[in-house]
Amino acid sequence: DLLTCEDGGPSGSAKVRLGLKYETEERCFTVAVMQIANGGSLPLPTDQNMYVRVVVLPCLETTRCLFRTRGVSPWETVDLNEVFGVQVSHSALRQKTLRVDVCYTNKLGKEECLAGAQISLAEISSSGERSTKWYNLLNYTYVSDIDAKHRE
Amino acid sequence: DLLTCEDGGPSGSAKVRLGLKYETEERCFTVAVMQIANGGSLPLPTDQNMYVRVVVLPCLETTRCLFRTRGVSPWETVDLNEVFGVQVSHSALRQKTLRVDVCYTNKLGKEECLAGAQISLAEISSSGERSTKWYNLLNYTYVSDIDAKHRE
Repeated sequence: DLLTCEDGGPSGSAKVRLGLKYETEERCFTVAVMQIANGGSLPLPTDQNMYVRVVVLPCLETTRCLFRTRGVSPWETVDLNEVFGVQVSHSALRQKTLRVDVCYTNKLGKEECLAGAQISLAEISSSGERSTKWYNLLNYTYVSDIDAKHRE
Repeated sequence: DLLTCEDGGPSGSAKVRLGLKYETEERCFTVAVMQIANGGSLPLPTDQNMYVRVVVLPCLETTRCLFRTRGVSPWETVDLNEVFGVQVSHSALRQKTLRVDVCYTNKLGKEECLAGAQISLAEISSSGERSTKWYNLLNYTYVSDIDAKHRE
């Protein structure tokens, strides 16, 4: 059901399943990168592995805020199940935004990101329960298309 | 309470309040752009008005998917209350992502966007009820900083 496509819409978009949790006592925000669905639809060069990059922004210099999963082959559904934690107060966290990108390392050793999700933490709960959802990954070519069309 | 800032975190980020609704019978997705908070924190050139640009992506050529509010001064809190609608099936909508950017028109007449939110519609409800939330606007300079640091 998740990847159904109707009405001549785009074929099922790549998605990432995330679990977000804030624990007040530990002052800890955790991001669980659980699965990628439809990863094969991303324009990954042949013979490359992809990985998920997680960034909590804005980022203070003194705190770690950037994490990467291991690399995986772009199969239709990939299980990752990696968890990353950031020490932060709930009020500071609510000013932040989570960016989650699917990237690979190109032949020059540089990071190239293909698609991503951006998740506002303005209304993140402090209940300590993990909120698990699928998020569509927006292909960067769509965003640059819009900018190109409307800047000319 | 919304704009409280603790722990040396960044000062209250700019935010946009959106109401999202999908009505199954009319096959219509509506985005209400309600308010901007802390808009004065965005790096808008003096004497420029800002506006909100709403895009539903990916966008088929045959459908209107890009909308702009009127221009407003960057006061701390701005009421916009403009509503935009897109005809789309619920299953196609669930493959899409909403981008909401705060932009202005520069002296050459080109659109420049300062900050934005990106909202996955993978789990949007078809209940017909409006879901109203505040979303942090991520300043684009943070995103390009990350890319610059980790590409070198």
